[in-house]
Amino acid sequence: MDIPTTAAAFSEQRARLMKIMQRYAGRNMKRFLTLEQQAFADGALPTKTKELLGLVASAALRCDDCIMFHLLGCREQGVSSAEMEKALNVALVVGGSITIPHIRRALAAWDELEQGG
Amino acid sequence: MDIPTTAAAFSEQRARLMKIMQRYAGRNMKRFLTLEQQAFADGALPTKTKELLGLVASAALRCDDCIMFHLLGCREQGVSSAEMEKALNVALVVGGSITIPHIRRALAAWDELEQGG
Amino acid sequence: MDIPTTAAAFSEQRARLMKIMQRYAGRNMKRFLTLEQQAFADGALPTKTKELLGLVASAALRCDDCIMFHLLGCREQGVSSAEMEKALNVALVVGGSITIPHIRRALAAWDELEQGG
Amino acid sequence: MDIPTTAAAFSEQRARLMKIMQRYAGRNMKRFLTLEQQAFADGALPTKTKELLGLVASAALRCDDCIMFHLLGCREQGVSSAEMEKALNVALVVGGSITIPHIRRALAAWDELEQGG
Amino acid sequence: MDIPTTAAAFSEQRARLMKIMQRYAGRNMKRFLTLEQQAFADGALPTKTKELLGLVASAALRCDDCIMFHLLGCREQGVSSAEMEKALNVALVVGGSITIPHIRRALAAWDELEQGG
Amino acid sequence: MDIPTTAAAFSEQRARLMKIMQRYAGRNMKRFLTLEQQAFADGALPTKTKELLGLVASAALRCDDCIMFHLLGCREQGVSSAEMEKALNVALVVGGSITIPHIRRALAAWDELEQGG
Repeated sequence: MDIPTTAAAFSEQRARLMKIMQRYAGRNMKRFLTLEQQAFADGALPTKTKELLGLVASAALRCDDCIMFHLLGCREQGVSSAEMEKALNVALVVGGSITIPHIRRALAAWDELEQGG
Repeated sequence: MDIPTTAAAFSEQRARLMKIMQRYAGRNMKRFLTLEQQAFADGALPTKTKELLGLVASAALRCDDCIMFHLLGCREQGVSSAEMEKALNVALVVGGSITIPHIRRALAAWDELEQGG
Repeated sequence: MDIPTTAAAFSEQRARLMKIMQRYAGRNMKRFLTLEQQAFADGALPTKTKELLGLVASAALRCDDCIMFHLLGCREQGVSSAEMEKALNVALVVGGSITIPHIRRALAAWDELEQGG
Repeated sequence: MDIPTTAAAFSEQRARLMKIMQRYAGRNMKRFLTLEQQAFADGALPTKTKELLGLVASAALRCDDCIMFHLLGCREQGVSSAEMEKALNVALVVGGSITIPHIRRALAAWDELEQGG
Repeated sequence: MDIPTTAAAFSEQRARLMKIMQRYAGRNMKRFLTLEQQAFADGALPTKTKELLGLVASAALRCDDCIMFHLLGCREQGVSSAEMEKALNVALVVGGSITIPHIRRALAAWDELEQGG
Repeated sequence: MDIPTTAAAFSEQRARLMKIMQRYAGRNMKRFLTLEQQAFADGALPTKTKELLGLVASAALRCDDCIMFHLLGCREQGVSSAEMEKALNVALVVGGSITIPHIRRALAAWDELEQGG
């Protein structure tokens, strides 16, 4: 299954699969999904910083789907292109050139969003 | 190359690529492929348990192709939806939210098989 | 910090560090720790099978501390040496020779426990 | 975004995404890209050996895009099918069966290049 | 080689090994070390945020040495215990329970620093 | 269990643990150990090149034990300090700064061997 690179198609696919996941998920799996949302809630660290943390963790662990999710979260939080680039550069240096294909796809997705995609 | 999500298309693609692999594989690579099959053979642990182990290892290491392979193996061994969900929940807790996109795709593939897809 | 290889020293170190973790952990981190325990509780899959799943996931992801934890769990569940070996062999084949140092240490720890260590 | 498996389509996609990356990349990210190229330059180790190192590192870390890039580099350096197979076998043994889907796709791409694709 | 858990012993070991590394490092390896430092310099994102990014990337990738390095960096930047805990919780949720042993050791090291260790 | 950094202590510990592993290993696990040795045998690629491949794969996957093993293999094959440094630089660029602690320890071990340790 291909991961869509436009924000609308990505969100649509994610929502569709999430419905299937919720149908099969037991109590513990459902709790994990809640816990994940709460990890990015405003608090001692603002959500904006947490979205950058999520973006860097996702890029370091090389998960396109997670990168796309946090890119959209970063935009909602008003992260600028320069801030996003600096965060991805941390992932690049820490995680190495093996992250480059993911960073290229992330920047292409960001660029589409900038173009109003 | 996209990984098909229906059982039939997945098995067809896998068989086609396996033929190419067998053509290029030297003696050691061929032995590895044999060793892999034997790791899941019935013995001190039943194949059913081993397929669950293979599923969890594949999900923890985040390999869609391997997950699909062991999902089909689990079904052959009569693994129920509840058993499969509990196994994937272990992978989720141990491996973190980075496994969620893979688990979502796994559950979508399982759901298609349940629907008789 | 070195990971102790005797069951007693391991459990003592783990308990000591866990106390510090509980002191710093916020509500979400505490919930994660609970969720992890529940993932291995008896249910659609028996705890014995889940401990084997945890052992294989830990070996595939190459975490000595987690391997030791699930080795002890396996023993509590009455897992035999042969069953444990078959589970670790799945991790070896799926995860490759990079898991061998961890499997060697796991088997040495298991051997100490067998010797009544 | 799917990774093309023909050499021409792969190189075209890579060039297109690289242009976007260069547009967003700050000074440090640009320097990393330069450093990566220099790591494979002729010197104490010949580029041919370095391309094999890059191929094995990419396969062990399971990055299809990076594998494809170094497969093309290997061909430019005159690596034979037998040499390539032996290198991928090292990745397979070290990295385990989780690398098999990547090795299958690598061999299929190599085969297309051999057929003059 | 064991990784020291007190700040002083860690910094002494790191400095000693870094001297050996600088002696063997060629021009490209030296440039990488420079690039890594620059990735955490003040700019579009403040160093404090970048140290949190480095901490989370290190915890998600499970590198005790790197975690310790960024923990010390976080303290220099005035990161509070609550901010540090929220950042590590992102790593925990994203990276799973496999990160717990590393987070336990990180919190123990932080605690020693808090006690004036 | 700590990984010794002198060649003699490392080889002694490895031999001791290997004896325990051979005692517990079933037929398939024993075959894997044989297959691993054969992967580095002379053939279409010389053992020297394969030891460099093993070193880079081990560094990229961040396994100190495996790095030490292939460092010793590299020395047996007459790999020079410059060749070893270039190989580790490929691992550094591909795998990122997260490999630096491992490369530092590798260079310290190599240095001890150079000093006749």
